[in-house]
Amino acid sequence: MIRFESDYTQGAVREIIDALVKTNMEMTPGYGKDEYCLSAERKIKAALENDEVDVHFLVGGTQTNLTFIASAIKPYQGVICADSGHINVHECGSIEACGTKLLQIPSADGKITAREIYRIVSDHIEDVNREHAVQPGMVYISFPTENGTLYSKNELKDIYYVCRKFGLILYIDGARLGYGLASEENDLQMKDLPYLCDAFYIGGTKVGALFGEALVIVNDSCKKDFRYMEKQKGAMLAKGRLLGLQFDALFTDGLYLDISRHAVELAIRIRDAFTRRGIKLFYDSPTNQQFPILTKDQVDTLSKDFAFSPWCKFGNDFVVRFCTSWATDENDVDVLIKAIESL
Amino acid sequence: MIRFESDYTQGAVREIIDALVKTNMEMTPGYGKDEYCLSAERKIKAALENDEVDVHFLVGGTQTNLTFIASAIKPYQGVICADSGHINVHECGSIEACGTKLLQIPSADGKITAREIYRIVSDHIEDVNREHAVQPGMVYISFPTENGTLYSKNELKDIYYVCRKFGLILYIDGARLGYGLASEENDLQMKDLPYLCDAFYIGGTKVGALFGEALVIVNDSCKKDFRYMEKQKGAMLAKGRLLGLQFDALFTDGLYLDISRHAVELAIRIRDAFTRRGIKLFYDSPTNQQFPILTKDQVDTLSKDFAFSPWCKFGNDFVVRFCTSWATDENDVDVLIKAIESL
Amino acid sequence: MIRFESDYTQGAVREIIDALVKTNMEMTPGYGKDEYCLSAERKIKAALENDEVDVHFLVGGTQTNLTFIASAIKPYQGVICADSGHINVHECGSIEACGTKLLQIPSADGKITAREIYRIVSDHIEDVNREHAVQPGMVYISFPTENGTLYSKNELKDIYYVCRKFGLILYIDGARLGYGLASEENDLQMKDLPYLCDAFYIGGTKVGALFGEALVIVNDSCKKDFRYMEKQKGAMLAKGRLLGLQFDALFTDGLYLDISRHAVELAIRIRDAFTRRGIKLFYDSPTNQQFPILTKDQVDTLSKDFAFSPWCKFGNDFVVRFCTSWATDENDVDVLIKAIESL
Amino acid sequence: MIRFESDYTQGAVREIIDALVKTNMEMTPGYGKDEYCLSAERKIKAALENDEVDVHFLVGGTQTNLTFIASAIKPYQGVICADSGHINVHECGSIEACGTKLLQIPSADGKITAREIYRIVSDHIEDVNREHAVQPGMVYISFPTENGTLYSKNELKDIYYVCRKFGLILYIDGARLGYGLASEENDLQMKDLPYLCDAFYIGGTKVGALFGEALVIVNDSCKKDFRYMEKQKGAMLAKGRLLGLQFDALFTDGLYLDISRHAVELAIRIRDAFTRRGIKLFYDSPTNQQFPILTKDQVDTLSKDFAFSPWCKFGNDFVVRFCTSWATDENDVDVLIKAIESL
Repeated sequence: MIRFESDYTQGAVREIIDALVKTNMEMTPGYGKDEYCLSAERKIKAALENDEVDVHFLVGGTQTNLTFIASAIKPYQGVICADSGHINVHECGSIEACGTKLLQIPSADGKITAREIYRIVSDHIEDVNREHAVQPGMVYISFPTENGTLYSKNELKDIYYVCRKFGLILYIDGARLGYGLASEENDLQMKDLPYLCDAFYIGGTKVGALFGEALVIVNDSCKKDFRYMEKQKGAMLAKGRLLGLQFDALFTDGLYLDISRHAVELAIRIRDAFTRRGIKLFYDSPTNQQFPILTKDQVDTLSKDFAFSPWCKFGNDFVVRFCTSWATDENDVDVLIKAIESL
Repeated sequence: MIRFESDYTQGAVREIIDALVKTNMEMTPGYGKDEYCLSAERKIKAALENDEVDVHFLVGGTQTNLTFIASAIKPYQGVICADSGHINVHECGSIEACGTKLLQIPSADGKITAREIYRIVSDHIEDVNREHAVQPGMVYISFPTENGTLYSKNELKDIYYVCRKFGLILYIDGARLGYGLASEENDLQMKDLPYLCDAFYIGGTKVGALFGEALVIVNDSCKKDFRYMEKQKGAMLAKGRLLGLQFDALFTDGLYLDISRHAVELAIRIRDAFTRRGIKLFYDSPTNQQFPILTKDQVDTLSKDFAFSPWCKFGNDFVVRFCTSWATDENDVDVLIKAIESL
Repeated sequence: MIRFESDYTQGAVREIIDALVKTNMEMTPGYGKDEYCLSAERKIKAALENDEVDVHFLVGGTQTNLTFIASAIKPYQGVICADSGHINVHECGSIEACGTKLLQIPSADGKITAREIYRIVSDHIEDVNREHAVQPGMVYISFPTENGTLYSKNELKDIYYVCRKFGLILYIDGARLGYGLASEENDLQMKDLPYLCDAFYIGGTKVGALFGEALVIVNDSCKKDFRYMEKQKGAMLAKGRLLGLQFDALFTDGLYLDISRHAVELAIRIRDAFTRRGIKLFYDSPTNQQFPILTKDQVDTLSKDFAFSPWCKFGNDFVVRFCTSWATDENDVDVLIKAIESL
Repeated sequence: MIRFESDYTQGAVREIIDALVKTNMEMTPGYGKDEYCLSAERKIKAALENDEVDVHFLVGGTQTNLTFIASAIKPYQGVICADSGHINVHECGSIEACGTKLLQIPSADGKITAREIYRIVSDHIEDVNREHAVQPGMVYISFPTENGTLYSKNELKDIYYVCRKFGLILYIDGARLGYGLASEENDLQMKDLPYLCDAFYIGGTKVGALFGEALVIVNDSCKKDFRYMEKQKGAMLAKGRLLGLQFDALFTDGLYLDISRHAVELAIRIRDAFTRRGIKLFYDSPTNQQFPILTKDQVDTLSKDFAFSPWCKFGNDFVVRFCTSWATDENDVDVLIKAIESL
């Protein structure tokens, strides 16, 4: 069985494992105040070419999302997001559990537009009874989206323009950030991000680390006292060093983008194999997740040797998901492509 | 500088590091549904001689406390605890952030008694306006306490008797559970715990693991749907395998208690050195944390070569904390003891 | 200016004002433990022909909704509702502020169906990763809906069947309950309600009272300790007598339904006038709210002498709302009908 | 039976009842945007000699406390209060239910001091691990306290000085404000309050109104978007007019202070009767609540003809509470005094 069902089935890049082994018996202060965290922070700032941002290391994505959102929003405000957004469908109500309503925009491909955001906010402002409704206070988007799609630089600029015009915080969930930046169709660089949003996180769990996300806060108004929120939400790792040394490794010699490129190249090879075979893709994804539309027979045939995820039905056919990751073996992809070709 | 300031300054036992290295490129399902978690669960149940409990693996202590408490308490109920309890003073209001009031009992040594709990609950029940006050719904105790002290088996029995009589959940924070069980003064065995409370956690972060706590739920009424709560609170690790293999290692061949015993023995040697030198201890701790009362001069002298934590003032003197752990080096303790003797 | 913009612009029925004046200097215990509350409770139980329900008096609708929902749902559960439901759009996130996600069903007329509820719940149960999503725990419907529409007895039976099958609580927001029961098209009686849901409230604020809603809890599992929740949410009126005497008056000699009938009859006369004039209604409402689709000119003409509420745009036309209430003057309706006829 | 057990057993002053009757069928906009609310607001500003404050009308005290505190505090901050403070003991955890921890100061008489506040805040700031503890963000005091005691102008000045120095919000619970201002021992005027705190409320429920509290927000940073919070917490009365006309009446021709003076004078006569009889008072209260320490026999004797509240035990004796209010009848007090004299 060759597994393509998710991008978090394996451990970490060798550099991280080596660092863990090597530093195991060192004594360091707890809670992210150690030299490894400081070093990782410096390297991330260097990659962003920006010294003004704040960097915090958290363990997982849901935790990062809920901690940042809870820290940056007022109790009567809501978060605009795609109805397919991870915080809306796959975090078990974690944002609402902190008291915040999500203001969902129906989305076919996981993206939302500046125009849609503008409409929600301006409708709210013009409503004479607006105090009876939740006030839009933040916009949440994913890059890449949960469907593998990407925002262009211009799309992000437009969204951020609307956000700043109305005083909304723009927050980008970068659980798979590397796989977006490494895509051929992407026109963003990592160093652009601080100019395009108020905060974002650099996903580690799905991109080379055992676990860990690096939250980057750009907007000064969101920086103050964030560590209190981390502690309160159970998101401050006692042995913070473990997070620091992972991001230190990922941000040494461009490793983060190198391993991301590996995953995306293999995903595109899989996509192309499906396309050549005449199989359509449900989303137009240029990143590490691919969503072919298969017949029941095709699903059954491929299931014999490969693991992949069900996604949704499409008429009588089935949309499924194949993921690659930093750890995917080229030979496994070759075997899969052969299987696709002989469907 | 030899460091005794906390019990989470170093990585993990060799067995864990070896397992991490060895399993790194294995592909496993996420979120705690892998073979390593299952194996660890089996071993914990075996150690408890109890097949009926539920076992969940979470990353840290604050996270475990808030997730369990939020799952087991009703919104108008409160948690009785010592005023020195970790949830009351060192978790940044995490329990209140979930909507729950803590009903604090002043405590000189970190412990609370069955009698004190009985009084709070019976006073509440007798109050004709009780609906204006928070209803006691749970009791939280730490074993060992934050002050290093221990409950005897009889004390726990009495507390649990009062809890069951009034329908309160009894939850034990075992962040340092191993260091309690390994103490010479302790009369509990691990397998007694399911008979003495409704839920407890076996601390890993401070006892040999890189991170991780094993929550054991005994009371059936607290078991249902706990995984939803884990997910909602950001407490479900994507690569759950990492938690499973750590507890699998700790619960193989009695490792957990062996390393705990090592820490406690060294702590008692340090305590005895202070006592021989005529220096009093602030708490009567038979576990891995020791709290000598030092003069300003003694603090200054020891600070030259050793790191330890400030605790509180005591008249003109200073209470400080020395911790040992599974990782403490005997030679370092020898050096410290010499220094104490020549104070 | 004759006002039809809402059903809460005026005070209370004469019987209530008289009772307030008459009892003003009586000394009664606080918090709903007085004779007037007891009497009102007895009369409501008599009207329901049901002695087993619990009755609580709260001040307003948002308060009643949030207090009951917060008391009856688990933290990882959500509430299924129409996207147009009052709790979703006009209570400023009050339910989410208590930690609970709303699971919205798109609705054209304010109603949702048993089939839609069934699909949401069964999809959730069949999802292997269901713990990553909010678990459906309650269904909220309004009777009449915010659009003036009604559920038939059979529709309610089907919804309640699905709810009981899956263990969901069914809660009915009866802010305008009287105006639903008094409708010619309604086939429910008040005494049917305890057989058709787990809890509902009898709206007073919009139906004859100065303020006040009577929450009726049918399901035993939702009854325990509700008064704690009332107090915690600031929903327990100190001088509870004020609520008791209002519902006592409304439930004496059938007053509640009599005044409701008055409002609905006048609303239907207004509806018929629009229809005769060839003006379409946006919703097919048989209750006290009517939603004609007017041209800009018609809006301008009617605005000279009448107040009514904007609702939404419909192409180039405008949907507006006319409300009647227990207090609406027949002569005012006559004048409005003349104006409609000469549009 | 003559009743002295609380100050909210009766309705409202005649002027309020008259206004209710007179305005009953007037049509006014909802939610506090009517002429009566505007008029009441103007009169309160005039009484405060301050045009810059914001005034909001809410139904009850618990509601006012939780809505204001939730709007003004950050999620990782706590509220310093006396352990006897109403929010700590008699609001069923309403503040914690909004996510906020109370930082309690033990108090013998219901008051806390600037020095105690200073110590808590400065200890927090000096703690190197302060992010593990809740950050003090607000101070809550009651005027008069729940024990009938008063802060002097200088005490309030000192407290507010510490608050401003450290950026804490000072909020005063004025459930019985009138009875404090009307006391002979009080050296504050109502117009001083905006200079002595960031927000306070003028209690109506216990001082002449059927229900209602007027929240006065002084600090600009707490004013924005407060109405959203009111709506979210179920604290925005649909027929807001009812609150407006009550405060309009209370703030016409000095009525609020006049009726308060009546209550306090009678309370002092009762206190003096106890003192003359050699009976000690548990708190030194110069306001409308009196707390004599009675023997069992005395309690039994007085209970035959008078209702009063149990408070606490004191050795073998009993502390009880006698309340007067705006509605207390002088003749009833005369009868009580005779009874005290013949104990």
